[in-house]
Amino acid sequence: MSAATPDTPTGGIKVLAFDIFGTVVDWHGSISDEVNALNLHGRGGRVDGGEFALAWRAGYQPAMRRVMSGELGWTLIDDLHRMILDDVLQEFQITQLTDVQKQDLNKVWHRLKPWPDAVAGLLRLKTKHIICTLSNGNIGLLTNMAKRAGLPWDCILSAEVFKAYKPHPSTYLGVAKVFDLPPSDVMLVAAHHEDLAAARACGLRTAYIERPLEFGAAKIKNVSPQAGNDFHSKNLTALADILDCA
Amino acid sequence: MSAATPDTPTGGIKVLAFDIFGTVVDWHGSISDEVNALNLHGRGGRVDGGEFALAWRAGYQPAMRRVMSGELGWTLIDDLHRMILDDVLQEFQITQLTDVQKQDLNKVWHRLKPWPDAVAGLLRLKTKHIICTLSNGNIGLLTNMAKRAGLPWDCILSAEVFKAYKPHPSTYLGVAKVFDLPPSDVMLVAAHHEDLAAARACGLRTAYIERPLEFGAAKIKNVSPQAGNDFHSKNLTALADILDCA
Repeated sequence: MSAATPDTPTGGIKVLAFDIFGTVVDWHGSISDEVNALNLHGRGGRVDGGEFALAWRAGYQPAMRRVMSGELGWTLIDDLHRMILDDVLQEFQITQLTDVQKQDLNKVWHRLKPWPDAVAGLLRLKTKHIICTLSNGNIGLLTNMAKRAGLPWDCILSAEVFKAYKPHPSTYLGVAKVFDLPPSDVMLVAAHHEDLAAARACGLRTAYIERPLEFGAAKIKNVSPQAGNDFHSKNLTALADILDCA
Repeated sequence: MSAATPDTPTGGIKVLAFDIFGTVVDWHGSISDEVNALNLHGRGGRVDGGEFALAWRAGYQPAMRRVMSGELGWTLIDDLHRMILDDVLQEFQITQLTDVQKQDLNKVWHRLKPWPDAVAGLLRLKTKHIICTLSNGNIGLLTNMAKRAGLPWDCILSAEVFKAYKPHPSTYLGVAKVFDLPPSDVMLVAAHHEDLAAARACGLRTAYIERPLEFGAAKIKNVSPQAGNDFHSKNLTALADILDCA
């Protein structure tokens, strides 16, 4: 049988492409911690880091839509994060930060911490597969994050390479094209069903990763399985078990 | 002082961007060995692997010039290598290869072996710097090569990302832009003075690496220092010494 119609569910998968924010790293916990450490004050007194993180992240999809609709020209996530940060600081009525401090806070996205299973899981998955990022984060952000966190990518792919943001098909199909493979030899690994559905529509295989704490302990995420995904896994070491990576 | 005007020659260098073919891997030796093992026959009897390698590589710069002049649309190195291979097979009057064998031979560029010092040197350089490729090779080629050879890149950058081939300024300046750094915080490491000169014209720092055997033992390369480079080094472990990387 050809690689596109494998004998087994795990057969023929050559490249694992990973969503990053929420799937591999804990954006909510990392940002909460840094914001709490800054001891910011605004509108309602001391700023809650968790609420700040949620507000910042809430601006993410709308900002990317402005780019993909053509309202904004091609803009890196670093710059979109800064635009959203300025809005959130205004919304929270936080005035105590200098511009240098804002620039540094914006780089918190380069310093996001991996979920506890991520590095161990990736090291195992890497023994049998090419492992790469497929994130809307820019290349510099993803490289700084990987170096700091010890994420052992074989290759860093990003919306920046394809000049399109997920869920645009150019991103998913771009991974297959980079490696000169049929889309079914590539599997997207993500904690977000919409991302996986868009990848599946392009012919990629899909693995859902449960991240119930993505939005913090106060807002537990529903991580129920959905039909259509090839695999449903608790975390990345469990995915290594499923894919039989020692 | 600012990073752009460092106190010391090695100060402020944050990213090391590496040329690959000839600098990090031995294209001539790797291709010679594979071609000799194929035991090809043509025009003058048994084909000499070293001569075949030189002929293949000789088509490289002209092919890229056809892309950069606009005569050819954007074309990946894998495809340029295949076009040149077909010409070389004809020139050598080699008719014994099937199309599948030609496809496999073309992928020898994904299997090039590192110079003996490369992996050890990169591991040391990586402790203090972001280390990335800056090659005209495509991303898939560079990723396959790195995985096979154990080249520990933090990030794989390629002409494919910038849609321009070196020595176009977009490639050198592209590295600085990806990492949001002034060009002087980036150093190109290469075994080719023209590549280094083009990088220097863009404001990057430069390190020349001696590779006297790049074209094989029968055609020793002049590796004399040239003015203008920040560093001149025997190999990558010697560069790690110079840059004080333990």
